[in-house]
Amino acid sequence: MELLNALKEFIPADRVTINENVLEQHSSDESYHTPQTPDVVVFPNSAEEVSKVMQVAAELNIPVVPYGLGTSLEGNVIPYERGITIDFSLMNKILEVRADDFLVKVQPGVTRTQLEKELKKYGLFFTVDPGADATLGGMAATNASGTTSVKYGIMRDQVRDLEVVLADGMVIHTGNMAAKSSSGYHLNSLFVGSEGTLGCMTELTLKVHGIPEEIMAGRASFKTVEDAVNAVIGILQAGVPVARVELVDEQSMKQINSFSDTNYKEVPTLFLEFHGNEAGLNQDVSFTKEILTDFNCEEMAFEADTAARNQLWEARHNAAYAYLHGNPGKKQMVTDVCLPISELAGAVKDARQAVEASGLIGGIVGHVGDGNYHILLMVDVNNPKDIEKANQVNEHIVSYALARGGTCTGEHGVGVGKQKYQEKEHGDALLVMRKIKAALDPENILNPGKVLG
Amino acid sequence: MELLNALKEFIPADRVTINENVLEQHSSDESYHTPQTPDVVVFPNSAEEVSKVMQVAAELNIPVVPYGLGTSLEGNVIPYERGITIDFSLMNKILEVRADDFLVKVQPGVTRTQLEKELKKYGLFFTVDPGADATLGGMAATNASGTTSVKYGIMRDQVRDLEVVLADGMVIHTGNMAAKSSSGYHLNSLFVGSEGTLGCMTELTLKVHGIPEEIMAGRASFKTVEDAVNAVIGILQAGVPVARVELVDEQSMKQINSFSDTNYKEVPTLFLEFHGNEAGLNQDVSFTKEILTDFNCEEMAFEADTAARNQLWEARHNAAYAYLHGNPGKKQMVTDVCLPISELAGAVKDARQAVEASGLIGGIVGHVGDGNYHILLMVDVNNPKDIEKANQVNEHIVSYALARGGTCTGEHGVGVGKQKYQEKEHGDALLVMRKIKAALDPENILNPGKVLG
Ligand SMILES: Cc1cc2nc3c(=O)[nH]c(=O)nc-3n(C[C@H](O)[C@H](O)[C@H](O)COP(=O)(O)OP(=O)(O)OC[C@H]3O[C@@H](n4cnc5c(N)ncnc54)[C@H](O)[C@@H]3O)c2cc1C
Ligand SMILES: Cc1cc2nc3c(=O)[nH]c(=O)nc-3n(C[C@H](O)[C@H](O)[C@H](O)COP(=O)(O)OP(=O)(O)OC[C@H]3O[C@@H](n4cnc5c(N)ncnc54)[C@H](O)[C@@H]3O)c2cc1C
Repeated sequence: MELLNALKEFIPADRVTINENVLEQHSSDESYHTPQTPDVVVFPNSAEEVSKVMQVAAELNIPVVPYGLGTSLEGNVIPYERGITIDFSLMNKILEVRADDFLVKVQPGVTRTQLEKELKKYGLFFTVDPGADATLGGMAATNASGTTSVKYGIMRDQVRDLEVVLADGMVIHTGNMAAKSSSGYHLNSLFVGSEGTLGCMTELTLKVHGIPEEIMAGRASFKTVEDAVNAVIGILQAGVPVARVELVDEQSMKQINSFSDTNYKEVPTLFLEFHGNEAGLNQDVSFTKEILTDFNCEEMAFEADTAARNQLWEARHNAAYAYLHGNPGKKQMVTDVCLPISELAGAVKDARQAVEASGLIGGIVGHVGDGNYHILLMVDVNNPKDIEKANQVNEHIVSYALARGGTCTGEHGVGVGKQKYQEKEHGDALLVMRKIKAALDPENILNPGKVLG
Repeated sequence: MELLNALKEFIPADRVTINENVLEQHSSDESYHTPQTPDVVVFPNSAEEVSKVMQVAAELNIPVVPYGLGTSLEGNVIPYERGITIDFSLMNKILEVRADDFLVKVQPGVTRTQLEKELKKYGLFFTVDPGADATLGGMAATNASGTTSVKYGIMRDQVRDLEVVLADGMVIHTGNMAAKSSSGYHLNSLFVGSEGTLGCMTELTLKVHGIPEEIMAGRASFKTVEDAVNAVIGILQAGVPVARVELVDEQSMKQINSFSDTNYKEVPTLFLEFHGNEAGLNQDVSFTKEILTDFNCEEMAFEADTAARNQLWEARHNAAYAYLHGNPGKKQMVTDVCLPISELAGAVKDARQAVEASGLIGGIVGHVGDGNYHILLMVDVNNPKDIEKANQVNEHIVSYALARGGTCTGEHGVGVGKQKYQEKEHGDALLVMRKIKAALDPENILNPGKVLG
């Protein structure tokens, strides 16, 4: 009550709510993690308001959870210690497109698809594509990446500057608009991926790219997942600058076909894309075809046509939803490890065996050009055995990855789901992370219980 | 004495020295900054030794300055508070080339040219090329970049993992070998560019690239610097993936010709390079030629031949030494600002006027594809007027850059020379940097007086 009154002093009543439906909407993400409602949800419309919210929270020692679209997968937005959820959906303006500088300035609630639409007018595009629609704030906070990262890099690589409201309400800028800088400590990359535990982003300056002169997409079918992965390694080692290369296993192709009304061959498949000038691209594609053949590719189809390409990528992007749709009543645990590329074929083979041994329905998809793959595991959240089996699979593939120089999460972040692996992965570096958290948020009010626990 | 004895307890006498010559060698960098000798120089050969040195330093509260090759330009290695200088020249092993993963593991004292030679055997190359030879440790600590950053990124982009010895002697790893990660806070990028103020790097895992199938280099001459810069903006905006694009002004072309025994046209010149497959590259180059012509290019010459290419880049890389050679008795102040690319033509024009107004000998060179340029200003360090004039030029171009969203240093780092601009550039973010420094090095023994002051 004290909290509510304090907030209503500077935010109009229609943007501060304890309405049960709204609290409910902010109680979960898109995963199997147990929901929890916050005490109150606020919808600020400026950095100043966010700063005031943080000041109130600091004064009353109340937890604050920043919230984008809630599409994260590791419980990242679930307010397990209740408190205030800051929903950024009203801060959704594209503030400036600096086409000449290949930069765009956005508020955190701008979604990827919204940005895409605007940039198209300038012949530009934003490269990070996590498949799901998501806010740029949420994507920066989780260090999202996706299908095009193999060529253009991850979210962290796109951030030039962030406006961040700190735990005490102070507003800072972490960077500038220059392409590079060696001035002071690099704060951009520290805040990117910090999942709301170090500050609330209220503005982002991001790199964008010119839409490529020519785009060609393709599909390649293999008998085994190992052949497919080895073909990817071959393509990368040949130095072909592939723009996208995604693996979808047999199980997942089946789910996709039944969900998307496509009739792709139901075998391990690579979805590929190439960006460049026409001459270079033709050479890249013909070289790639040779490599695919060397790795026992059974069928391939390449198309420069936009509609066919879009259908292909829509199908790939719908993989997760296809599983949900095909398994009503179940939720999904999406694992997310990343390894040095030379370890990928072994890892995927091992993962396939782990899924089969678990008896759960699940398939493998992955941004394999980065050495990153997911297992989509369908679980009945009311059946503790399902959760246990899924946890075992997760544990197994994380251990496999960590033992080979990999990471427990390539792109989804730690949230609560990956905390148990932090010590094993980071060792004493975890102490450094804790010191940084304590220095910037001494009362631990920013998304408490996440990332470092 | 107490210090010397403490160090000699675990480092053999021949690797701990107070020899005047050695102290002298570690008293300066390659700039105009006033030298200062350390109390003692140690040459450790392992992370364990570095850790023990840090423990001794922590116990006795003595400053420690990490030292690579001393080629930095802002006083970064000068031990103004004396103490221990750790010279990493004996930690110069290339530990592992993981060709399949496009990774290399090196000790910090490995030099760029040493690494280049080794990688060639594998058909690989390391992309960051600051011109001067330098250690990988020093390059990571300053977040170096150079001619190829426009295509391949800066030092920070190449770092997958660092082994770092912290102020209290603890040894951590900041990353892993996977291409991407969203696990925990991103420490790689915090330590990169921290100029030895947060820890000593004792091992680096770095990204490498396959040597391009085809390389083509070229030179383009212009009547004015503005035409040259505008041509660069045109090339970038056309989406040509240029691998190098360097500006050398008229003054600097003269110095280069007389130093390198070349006879290039003495007018503002762009040095360019393209990497790719043959077909793509031909298309890129012919498109570039059209753009250059549009911007009043007066003469251009492109060559695929290796010898001619090497001569071109050697000439460019010798620009700084050419000035030193041509102006005996003088030292150089090298300014280093970086701006959003759309601001570059105005900035370079303004800089040219500032140099002329100062009356100092000086020329402009730059990694213009990144919006980064330097003025090489020749100063007589015994003449306070020279220093004052040079400082005025520096001040002027920094202010110009900061007012337009740029940074006071694109690649040389802060050292002592750029401290006075930190507050203006970072505002309250400087407080965050200070909190991080205090959290990780509470006694301020790591390169004290640098970066944050
Ligand atoms: C079907 C499906 C496919 C997916 N595919 C991918 C993929 O390919 N790659 C990938 O990376 N992810 C993927 N994800 C996960 C998810 O889309 C990403 O994590 C996304 O970045 C989350 O964005 P969001 O706006 O929904 O953020 P939310 O889920 O709302 O929040 C995520 C985190 O960011 C914090 N946060 C949000 N806004 C801010 C802010 N303004 N300031 C500070 N912190 C903030 C939150 O506190 C939370 O910790 C997928 C999810 C689904 C459901
Ligand atoms: C002619 C010339 C041209 C140059 N051109 C460029 C250029 O194009 N781009 C560019 O970026 N720079 C350039 N420089 C600057 C310089 O070469 C770079 O700053 C280089 O990265 C310094 O490397 P170094 O090994 O000499 O390091 P040093 O000068 O020895 O040290 C630099 C900094 O790194 C710290 N350090 C060194 N080793 C370690 C370690 N192991 N752990 C922690 N900290 C450490 C030092 O304390 C110091 O703060 C140029 C210099 C010259 C003289």
